[in-house]
Amino acid sequence: MAKRIGKQTIIIEKNVGIISSAGVVGKKEYEGPLGKDFDNVFLDEYAGEESFEAAESKFLKNAIGIAMLNKELKVEDIDIVTGGDLLNQDMASTFGVKDFQIPYIGLFSACSSCSLGAGLASVIIDSGAANTAIAATSSHFCSAERQFRFPLEYGSKTTPNSQRTVTGAGAGVFAIDKSVPNIKAVTFGKVVDFGVTDANNMGAAMAPAAADTISQYFEDTGSKPDDFDLILTGDLGFVGSKILLELLSKKGFDISVVHNDCGMMMFGDNDPDYKGGGSGCGCCASIFYSHIMKKFHNNELRRILVIATGALLSPTSAFQGFSIPAIAHLIEVEKC
Amino acid sequence: MAKRIGKQTIIIEKNVGIISSAGVVGKKEYEGPLGKDFDNVFLDEYAGEESFEAAESKFLKNAIGIAMLNKELKVEDIDIVTGGDLLNQDMASTFGVKDFQIPYIGLFSACSSCSLGAGLASVIIDSGAANTAIAATSSHFCSAERQFRFPLEYGSKTTPNSQRTVTGAGAGVFAIDKSVPNIKAVTFGKVVDFGVTDANNMGAAMAPAAADTISQYFEDTGSKPDDFDLILTGDLGFVGSKILLELLSKKGFDISVVHNDCGMMMFGDNDPDYKGGGSGCGCCASIFYSHIMKKFHNNELRRILVIATGALLSPTSAFQGFSIPAIAHLIEVEKC
Repeated sequence: MAKRIGKQTIIIEKNVGIISSAGVVGKKEYEGPLGKDFDNVFLDEYAGEESFEAAESKFLKNAIGIAMLNKELKVEDIDIVTGGDLLNQDMASTFGVKDFQIPYIGLFSACSSCSLGAGLASVIIDSGAANTAIAATSSHFCSAERQFRFPLEYGSKTTPNSQRTVTGAGAGVFAIDKSVPNIKAVTFGKVVDFGVTDANNMGAAMAPAAADTISQYFEDTGSKPDDFDLILTGDLGFVGSKILLELLSKKGFDISVVHNDCGMMMFGDNDPDYKGGGSGCGCCASIFYSHIMKKFHNNELRRILVIATGALLSPTSAFQGFSIPAIAHLIEVEKC
Repeated sequence: MAKRIGKQTIIIEKNVGIISSAGVVGKKEYEGPLGKDFDNVFLDEYAGEESFEAAESKFLKNAIGIAMLNKELKVEDIDIVTGGDLLNQDMASTFGVKDFQIPYIGLFSACSSCSLGAGLASVIIDSGAANTAIAATSSHFCSAERQFRFPLEYGSKTTPNSQRTVTGAGAGVFAIDKSVPNIKAVTFGKVVDFGVTDANNMGAAMAPAAADTISQYFEDTGSKPDDFDLILTGDLGFVGSKILLELLSKKGFDISVVHNDCGMMMFGDNDPDYKGGGSGCGCCASIFYSHIMKKFHNNELRRILVIATGALLSPTSAFQGFSIPAIAHLIEVEKC
């Protein structure tokens, strides 16, 4: 049984934990500072498939497969899978989960799908509607560029604050187990629109959504930034993270000491073409479900917040002059 | 607390019901056989907006607004809203829910989003994670044609089995109330792919998914077709419905006497251009949340199954030669 507290936060009352997980990335991500922590790498951006989209499905499928294999789980052991990606009609997830033949909940929440899926899986298990659920998300640099910007063959230049879509996927297996990192609370976010229209500056569009969800969680639960070892945002990158710290500071919350961002962590800060950092549904997912889980298992982390952030940008809405709405979903993760 | 039975079915144990709802449609839907049952109609396909996509958002927003107004609910009374549509990046839902400022779960499950959202809302309320939730979905003929086929200005001809995307939206408000139609069970579907590649014959692609979910529900619960007053599929249309009856008959389930399909009901069977019937996320939603709810309230229905069906077709996957995977989610609805 879950329980609501405050305005938006859900307390997970059973010991719903991440019993297994995997993060799978591409070559550039593997060569980044977190490379050694990922569970698999495809050095070829096609991953042996005939299109970038099919490759992205393979990343997602592979992350699910490794997460299941780690615990010797079979398809019939999994009750529900949630999936999400950046592609139109969730193409990567649909084709990525199809062969598993597990009941499927398709999500679209842009890059915030990682914590949305994890939060939903936790609520569903807490409710008794499933014993075991998988949450998986993916993104791919080449498929995202083609869909949201220009095909790579055009050789377009990046803008100063551009974020590079991460080629990768992450998957977590959720079930009741007190001994693993547990999801203690979930705060589903609202759509927040601060009127940002620069499609090359997603971090700026998403930071207000992250600030909204994080401050709401603090108000709902009465907890403070220093109750946590880490407050990890999804993919605000370098620009968005700075804005987030300022916005939260104005609300009276100083998270600067414990904050980090998957978009800043993935490639380090030396990429001349992508000074904004990383982004994408696969950014937070591949880091959370491998690097962060390893830190929990090594007792380097005890209690953290994960807030994946999504820019609900549609090329169509951008062409029509609309601003970029954003959303951020939060999960509190603790290992006893 | 929810409970799992059989392989895929979730029993909702609290009295989670649809306490209010609304269906909003366009002119052609209003002029169809169910016209008088809808809660609102926009005779202008732009609904006073500057694009078809913005119009679709307005339909969704209007359906949510009417459903809330019917029960004098305010924004602060609603804990969660789930939304979904056919547009890339769920543009209609994002912009449709944004002004309400309610925590938002974005879904992509094509036309099956209607019962996916209803099922999720029911599980979430049953879990205690929310007291009140709204599930809303929309589609729009003009925005769907532009995105999936050709802009209307091209004047493309339809194929013999074409289904016309419904211009409309539906929204239901879910909360604990024994006196209204209650969601008794939910069966989330698996992605089913029978290798259909004809993007103009969605009914054929979706029928196997509907058959899979319906037969699984029967197996899980031990119920039979004649336990129900109505088994309502989402938008298989005339061709897909025929295939569904055959597939289920082969599995030993004859639902022919109690079956109907929202795609067959919306426009009647006299449309020379769309002999396949209607389709779209707004098809099942507008009919279920208005016409069907009215029948419950008039005691013309007591126990039904609703199975919205979705073709997880992406123009990109179609261009790349992939077949059309499909999915169907089921809810059992009963009024005591």
